[in-house]
Amino acid sequence: MAFSLIVSSPKPFSPSSNPNPNISRSHILSNSWLSPPSSRSSVIPHLSGSSFVLLSKPWTRSGATRCSLRSRPEYIPNDIPDPRYVRVFDTTLRDGEQSPGATMTSKEKLVVARQLSRLGVDIIEAGFPASSPDDLDAVRSIAMEVGKQPVSEDGHIPVICGLARCNKKDIDAAWEAVRHAKKPRVHTFIATSEIHMQHKLRKTREEVVRIAREMVAYARSLGCQDIEFSPEDAGRSDRDFLYHVLEEVIKAGATTVNIPDTVGYTLPSEFEKLIADIKANTHGIENVIISTHCQNDLGLATANTLAGAYAGARQLEVTVNGIGERAGNASLEEVVIAMKCRQELMGGLYTGINTKHIVMASKMVAEYTGLHVQPHKAIVGANAFAHESGIHQDGMLKHKNTYEIISPEDIGLSRSNESGIVLGKLSGRHALRSKLLEFGYDINGNELEDVFKRFKEVAEKKKRVSDEDIEALITDEIFQPAVIWSLGELQATCGTLGLSTATVKLIASDGEEKIACSVGTGPVDAAYKAIDSIVQVPAVLREYAMNSVTEGIDAIATTRVVIGGDNNSMAMHALTGESVRRTFSGSGAAMDIVVSSVRAYVSALNKMLGFMSAVKATTESPQGKTSRSSE
Amino acid sequence: MAFSLIVSSPKPFSPSSNPNPNISRSHILSNSWLSPPSSRSSVIPHLSGSSFVLLSKPWTRSGATRCSLRSRPEYIPNDIPDPRYVRVFDTTLRDGEQSPGATMTSKEKLVVARQLSRLGVDIIEAGFPASSPDDLDAVRSIAMEVGKQPVSEDGHIPVICGLARCNKKDIDAAWEAVRHAKKPRVHTFIATSEIHMQHKLRKTREEVVRIAREMVAYARSLGCQDIEFSPEDAGRSDRDFLYHVLEEVIKAGATTVNIPDTVGYTLPSEFEKLIADIKANTHGIENVIISTHCQNDLGLATANTLAGAYAGARQLEVTVNGIGERAGNASLEEVVIAMKCRQELMGGLYTGINTKHIVMASKMVAEYTGLHVQPHKAIVGANAFAHESGIHQDGMLKHKNTYEIISPEDIGLSRSNESGIVLGKLSGRHALRSKLLEFGYDINGNELEDVFKRFKEVAEKKKRVSDEDIEALITDEIFQPAVIWSLGELQATCGTLGLSTATVKLIASDGEEKIACSVGTGPVDAAYKAIDSIVQVPAVLREYAMNSVTEGIDAIATTRVVIGGDNNSMAMHALTGESVRRTFSGSGAAMDIVVSSVRAYVSALNKMLGFMSAVKATTESPQGKTSRSSE
Repeated sequence: MAFSLIVSSPKPFSPSSNPNPNISRSHILSNSWLSPPSSRSSVIPHLSGSSFVLLSKPWTRSGATRCSLRSRPEYIPNDIPDPRYVRVFDTTLRDGEQSPGATMTSKEKLVVARQLSRLGVDIIEAGFPASSPDDLDAVRSIAMEVGKQPVSEDGHIPVICGLARCNKKDIDAAWEAVRHAKKPRVHTFIATSEIHMQHKLRKTREEVVRIAREMVAYARSLGCQDIEFSPEDAGRSDRDFLYHVLEEVIKAGATTVNIPDTVGYTLPSEFEKLIADIKANTHGIENVIISTHCQNDLGLATANTLAGAYAGARQLEVTVNGIGERAGNASLEEVVIAMKCRQELMGGLYTGINTKHIVMASKMVAEYTGLHVQPHKAIVGANAFAHESGIHQDGMLKHKNTYEIISPEDIGLSRSNESGIVLGKLSGRHALRSKLLEFGYDINGNELEDVFKRFKEVAEKKKRVSDEDIEALITDEIFQPAVIWSLGELQATCGTLGLSTATVKLIASDGEEKIACSVGTGPVDAAYKAIDSIVQVPAVLREYAMNSVTEGIDAIATTRVVIGGDNNSMAMHALTGESVRRTFSGSGAAMDIVVSSVRAYVSALNKMLGFMSAVKATTESPQGKTSRSSE
Repeated sequence: MAFSLIVSSPKPFSPSSNPNPNISRSHILSNSWLSPPSSRSSVIPHLSGSSFVLLSKPWTRSGATRCSLRSRPEYIPNDIPDPRYVRVFDTTLRDGEQSPGATMTSKEKLVVARQLSRLGVDIIEAGFPASSPDDLDAVRSIAMEVGKQPVSEDGHIPVICGLARCNKKDIDAAWEAVRHAKKPRVHTFIATSEIHMQHKLRKTREEVVRIAREMVAYARSLGCQDIEFSPEDAGRSDRDFLYHVLEEVIKAGATTVNIPDTVGYTLPSEFEKLIADIKANTHGIENVIISTHCQNDLGLATANTLAGAYAGARQLEVTVNGIGERAGNASLEEVVIAMKCRQELMGGLYTGINTKHIVMASKMVAEYTGLHVQPHKAIVGANAFAHESGIHQDGMLKHKNTYEIISPEDIGLSRSNESGIVLGKLSGRHALRSKLLEFGYDINGNELEDVFKRFKEVAEKKKRVSDEDIEALITDEIFQPAVIWSLGELQATCGTLGLSTATVKLIASDGEEKIACSVGTGPVDAAYKAIDSIVQVPAVLREYAMNSVTEGIDAIATTRVVIGGDNNSMAMHALTGESVRRTFSGSGAAMDIVVSSVRAYVSALNKMLGFMSAVKATTESPQGKTSRSSE
């Protein structure tokens, strides 16, 4: 990145200064955020009015403050009226969910989508509808709910996007899934690097261009007016061929062109140059939005994404906590906070993200996907704002700026301190319900009754029930897959003497009770074997992890397990097109670690059994079948 | 970073081409890796001969191969004979260990130091000797062992470095700790940003310069010929003042000047410019090595470190897994692998790291510090090389380059496949010992007997004992703190019916047995309460986490706990100078999760009791007292 020239004497960005000496004058003139495309004739109808974004003050060292309430520009698929506004495209539910063990249920996806809307992301990529009927359903329900009504008072409704390979069946499925949204988008892709075209697609350059052009046109012919196209493995594609492909899809009606660094291979300067080159050399590029999608294999996804924005990309594809296959994607929180913290160096770029919802989004995604965040993860790690607790000598650290560049409150971290409600054993349903509303869980009736019952059990045993305890309970109670089996009772003995034994009572959805006992190498092994002897479905334990949610020996322990099944739990991988054996996570919470472990296993089994029956239902109907061919 | 100009037409780097158009010609002439300082008169004696570094082939896409065996340049504190060689300075044991809960015992630190030597790091920052007598001892034993004899056949012996604030007592302690090493280094620092000088140091610029100069000279007067100086918070320091401070410490005898981005605030281009500016504007800078130290608060530490190297830094400060306070530091594995993968874009820079030892180093550090690595961590995360397992259709993925840019073998990941030894229930002591040697654990006698006994217990219950099982056992058995209490027997009952009860027998170091029982909210709570009633030292459970080490219900579970004590467990923080309450981690492994949990708690208690008695011993002797003043 070459914007270092303004570093030593920071000054407000003005169109007359050239921040990037590597880019020629003619290129600068075509730079959308230097010269706004005001006179452009838009062929795309305006889909919505503008909504307001509450932006807290930019965190500038100099103490300069700018406008604190900014209007989120009106949504026009191929144009952003404010050249400094950068769209945030969240693909947690598609790219993130595709990582090993991260399978989420439709219900979980809907909850995450609501939180993403609250967070203010511009586009939610909700899934890959052709991959499984379950995924199509999930995307459709997100389109029909989160894509139709605002979640927050600001009135913001995100675009709902579905992924499709460049073939008609995929595009049909994606359109079918998203079309009910107020702002639907289809995102289609095909590989353009030699290595992928030869070894994966087995197609010539000419075939690839033709397919891309025809499929973008096909999506438009269905009535979709917001189409994103990605040349997969763009980072390793021949440059001139890449420009050519992009020109053709733009002519065919693409409104966003996304440039993925599929293998996470590029360095920031290199990616910046790639985006700048595309901007400078692709005919018609000024009529569409350029997007980035950076994988993190070398730990550079955040830096590459920022470099892309600096070079002119106005949509950034990210995931919450940076999850995704292999080393994941650029993380939403890092990209957004870095742009906000260093806005003056980023040419005044800004996003519509309400950063106060970051922590909740991070916790929710970690919980549902089972992909935990390391303590030293930037922004959202448990230690990100922590110093070892200690006695401040001489008030040395009174100035928190000495070591802190971001305030925890800005990402929503100190919620529990702000809240007036502290729950204890005397708290009633009303207090509990208020606390749950504060977290964004609006429940009533039986659901509330169940949570309240378990809350009282904990409150009997602990002096003070913390926010984390409540969250653990509600996650365990409310966001479970459809119940096929539930835990009745459990009893276990164990110790160094061996011969651990567990007895389990499970209750089927029709109310039938089954009891089994087993010995094992430990109490969990014994209990899981007892459960297996009741459920009788092959399941392999892939991962097992447990954490306490608060300090203290009497904390609630949450367990997360990941299990794998047999060939009835297959789905299609978006990029490779191959069938993959999905794995299913389950979580459980209890003060007893053995009970917690058993709850998690039952939850994962329910998720797997639900998925298997959905797959079975569709493979028996011809419409649900998916095709691997590229056209 | 501005080296994008060579991206589209990669070519071998030659001194006649200018890769960085932002830097003037005169600056380029002073660039050490463009014009090697061959005629420089070195005032520093050569401390060692050169050793050989086995470098695997650079991973170039083009298929070009270069020399596969390169000589590690001779170690001269203020000069590197090969201008393209970059030193790796590992501060896992100092900056990493200072993170919350990451406290390691002296024995653990020594084991990590051995692995760092094997990995080929050039400098090991082994600790902050003034912070506690325990830390001084740890650094001294590393200097006397790892700093004296090579661990690998290549004959490499790393520099051993101790941190010291700019005061005589700190420097005395650091020199006392490192002086027995073959190549000892003292690293001293003082803050140079306005905000730190005013609010933390309460000193004027003139005072800060004088102290820095005098303390570097003082360290030399003790006989130390390898001195690193860091202007803390350099990223926010006034540029001209920064040059001035550096010039003065260079005159006083500093051999490396390290530029920390203390608050993790800079963008890559900005940090590149900072290093380039220092290189261009500081008199005498050509006689010393420039170093980087990047914190990761915005997720940019790896990118910033690479940018620093590109701009001319020839020492990079990193930690294994990127651990450290808040969001941690640049991660060794990301920086090293990115440089190796993209060597042609990094001007041919290379390090002396033997990447095959990365995975083992990563596991060891995660285990000892309790700072786990998230599944999507670049390079060393569990998913970094994983795709969902699936059926390959049409051999589509035969070309692994389609998605993989690094081979798992290159970082030492497929060790178990290469090894001929598979352990099972018929394996004897000899086979176990061979397997342990393969991991780098050379044990005999009672230690071997203990591990063998536990191995047999596992082998009785599992068909195949995996490498991960063995590692969990050896970690649990061998690398425990000095035993004050050990677990005799344990018995527990639990379940949904409540009234969990545990009975524990602990054995004191003198052989005395004590038995206690307790009820609790779960079996762990009950067992820990029983232990507390025997040990009778205040301890608060701060963190609790459990993982299974392999797939399958009958896996070994490892538990990691972090506990905090009272005021007898204080140490001094390197940067803030404040007293911090240290926390202590403990780990345990067993097939029974309750037994595993109890082992971990006993281990953490032993670590805490050992630390408390060491602190008590020194606060009673006047020599051990440390001072907070800056001079």
